[in-house]
Amino acid sequence: MDGPGPALANAARFGHLLDALRRRRPLVHHMTSMVVAHVTANVTLALGASPIMAAAAEEVEEVAAQADALVLNLGTLTPAAADTMVAAGRAANAAGRPVILDPVGYGFTGLRTRTAQRILSQVQVAVIRGNQAEIALLAGTGGRVRGVDAAGSLEDAAVEDAARRLAERTGAVAAVTGPVDRVAGPQGIIRIHHGHPLMAAVTGTGCMATTAVAAFTACAPDRPWEAAAAGLGAFALAGERAAGGPGGAGPGSFQAALLDALYRLEPGDLDSLRVEVVS
Amino acid sequence: MDGPGPALANAARFGHLLDALRRRRPLVHHMTSMVVAHVTANVTLALGASPIMAAAAEEVEEVAAQADALVLNLGTLTPAAADTMVAAGRAANAAGRPVILDPVGYGFTGLRTRTAQRILSQVQVAVIRGNQAEIALLAGTGGRVRGVDAAGSLEDAAVEDAARRLAERTGAVAAVTGPVDRVAGPQGIIRIHHGHPLMAAVTGTGCMATTAVAAFTACAPDRPWEAAAAGLGAFALAGERAAGGPGGAGPGSFQAALLDALYRLEPGDLDSLRVEVVS
Amino acid sequence: MDGPGPALANAARFGHLLDALRRRRPLVHHMTSMVVAHVTANVTLALGASPIMAAAAEEVEEVAAQADALVLNLGTLTPAAADTMVAAGRAANAAGRPVILDPVGYGFTGLRTRTAQRILSQVQVAVIRGNQAEIALLAGTGGRVRGVDAAGSLEDAAVEDAARRLAERTGAVAAVTGPVDRVAGPQGIIRIHHGHPLMAAVTGTGCMATTAVAAFTACAPDRPWEAAAAGLGAFALAGERAAGGPGGAGPGSFQAALLDALYRLEPGDLDSLRVEVVS
Repeated sequence: MDGPGPALANAARFGHLLDALRRRRPLVHHMTSMVVAHVTANVTLALGASPIMAAAAEEVEEVAAQADALVLNLGTLTPAAADTMVAAGRAANAAGRPVILDPVGYGFTGLRTRTAQRILSQVQVAVIRGNQAEIALLAGTGGRVRGVDAAGSLEDAAVEDAARRLAERTGAVAAVTGPVDRVAGPQGIIRIHHGHPLMAAVTGTGCMATTAVAAFTACAPDRPWEAAAAGLGAFALAGERAAGGPGGAGPGSFQAALLDALYRLEPGDLDSLRVEVVS
Repeated sequence: MDGPGPALANAARFGHLLDALRRRRPLVHHMTSMVVAHVTANVTLALGASPIMAAAAEEVEEVAAQADALVLNLGTLTPAAADTMVAAGRAANAAGRPVILDPVGYGFTGLRTRTAQRILSQVQVAVIRGNQAEIALLAGTGGRVRGVDAAGSLEDAAVEDAARRLAERTGAVAAVTGPVDRVAGPQGIIRIHHGHPLMAAVTGTGCMATTAVAAFTACAPDRPWEAAAAGLGAFALAGERAAGGPGGAGPGSFQAALLDALYRLEPGDLDSLRVEVVS
Repeated sequence: MDGPGPALANAARFGHLLDALRRRRPLVHHMTSMVVAHVTANVTLALGASPIMAAAAEEVEEVAAQADALVLNLGTLTPAAADTMVAAGRAANAAGRPVILDPVGYGFTGLRTRTAQRILSQVQVAVIRGNQAEIALLAGTGGRVRGVDAAGSLEDAAVEDAARRLAERTGAVAAVTGPVDRVAGPQGIIRIHHGHPLMAAVTGTGCMATTAVAAFTACAPDRPWEAAAAGLGAFALAGERAAGGPGGAGPGSFQAALLDALYRLEPGDLDSLRVEVVS
């Protein structure tokens, strides 16, 4: 394409969503892994939202019903946690709160694969955020995982085809992170041209991107396609800025600089992202 | 008041406590959440104490009896953990070690509220460290929580009234963090005028303050009022210094600078805190 | 000794192992504590390997069989986790993958002591990485722990004697960290003269060293003696460089700089470590 079409002009102006996030300070309930609990709580705060990490069967429904969005992250899954996630997801559904699924390690172990499928069949998921392999495997179009990282890059067309199919089949928005991020929904695909290779040198950047999606979707539960794109765009832009400053020294500095950059994002920054919209 | 009265002169000179901490290197047993386990272990080390995180029912009594203080943090509570916390608390009591309670999310879910009350009825707690809402709700004087953060600030008088009542009712020192920190005990209230707004942009600063209280109380178990104030004062001063240096760039840099500042505190720094004592 | 003998010339040139690590990007399965899960995943990535943290009984055997090495870290142990660790260890053995044991807190509680012994009797362990007290207690030659930290330094000769005995008795390589790191195997002892005192001011540096050992051993499972020394050497050199730069400001800055330094290690750096080999 020669340049962004008229759809882009609207879809890519996400500043008002960050403004809403900062004003409303949504409460984002995470059921997540011990690996990323701390850093995703910090991403939530840096964006301007409020995190609550709660996982006990005895309280998750109570928490999910009071929170503004629920993240289900399969990072260090157990069968008991899978049951609790379904219960929390249904409580969030009943309260009209968006549920964001991060199918960490889908396709690598039976437990993770079965649990993601079960959540998708028993909970209404607003957004699925995964890497290329996870999304392609969920869509049934191929892909290969090794541990929790994608093994190699897929062709752009294959990624978009998988995301479209997954969105169609599940009714959820499919948000795929990679060198270019893509968000597929009924209105088409938003491509986000931001990010930096250092993001792959730090653990949990995928999970942090999911948190950003959840914080934005909490403020626009009726527009998960734009909200997911705003979340991924904000996160990728922050990553780019972090790597361009003192965070470029390596993954330790980068991680600190990434939180700083998220904290310093201004609504105006999200009105001029390098984004494409294709139907 | 025109200036600190004679009570202040004594109560505010906490340098000897930091000196004792560094010399004795107390072992601080934490039963805490997966969100803050890593960072509170680092706060413990940065202050000069030694952390041990142990949570299995099969070993907590053994650990609590050998450690110099026990932190019970309800951050990611389960019913099984509640039982184990009570057992550990009783073992610490039997061994004469101070128990510090951090009632994270008190009033937000039934599980957390019931567990905090149960701990207070079955364990002799030396210090309760909470935010304004948690302390006010525990005292039964009002307050409102949203997730694990206080929802808005209470009036100063209301905070102090709540802290006094809670201290009276439980026999524990009540340590409340906020824009001004306050420590209530039988001798009155110590107000600490240090800190920085960036502390609220990082997850777990409340839990880290609790750890600081525990490390100091481990060295002065018979003076929990001063020890808790020393812990909060040390932590708030370190936060202030961190924000005034490279940590001012944002929450990621702040978190690293906070540990640096704790590590670099000198006993003399704690002899000149901006502190008020009111009876 | 006047200088490194001929054995040193070969044993100390570890650059090819780092080169292999970066090319093969081994998958390192960690069963570890909530305290260090995040930071050890980051160490794995910074070195160039890929981490997977999985602990559910229902998937650990599947994961262990697909990964290139398995870390068993007793940091926040439970009896159920002990059972699962044994199962995962046996699956790794069956698949021919090296198992690295980190006996955190050995000798401090019965649960940890019994579990380490059980793992050593039921799993073939390639490398045991511990502090001086843990190794000496495991070897049955003395030592004293306080929490998870060694209580004081042992004499050099006592450390080496303990490491030799433990290696002989178990058939595993015994890797001891301290002011000087030592790796004992059938071929003798490799001493590594790198590191910095700030490494003891940050939680989990022992666990991170274990991760480095595992990442290198994953690439040379038939040479665990050299691989363990390469891992400890790489980690200690990175610590030294981190402390010599902006990481010298304190433990918070150090932690970030340590990951940066690991990420920036070049194979050539590992060909000129200050290392001694004694038979």
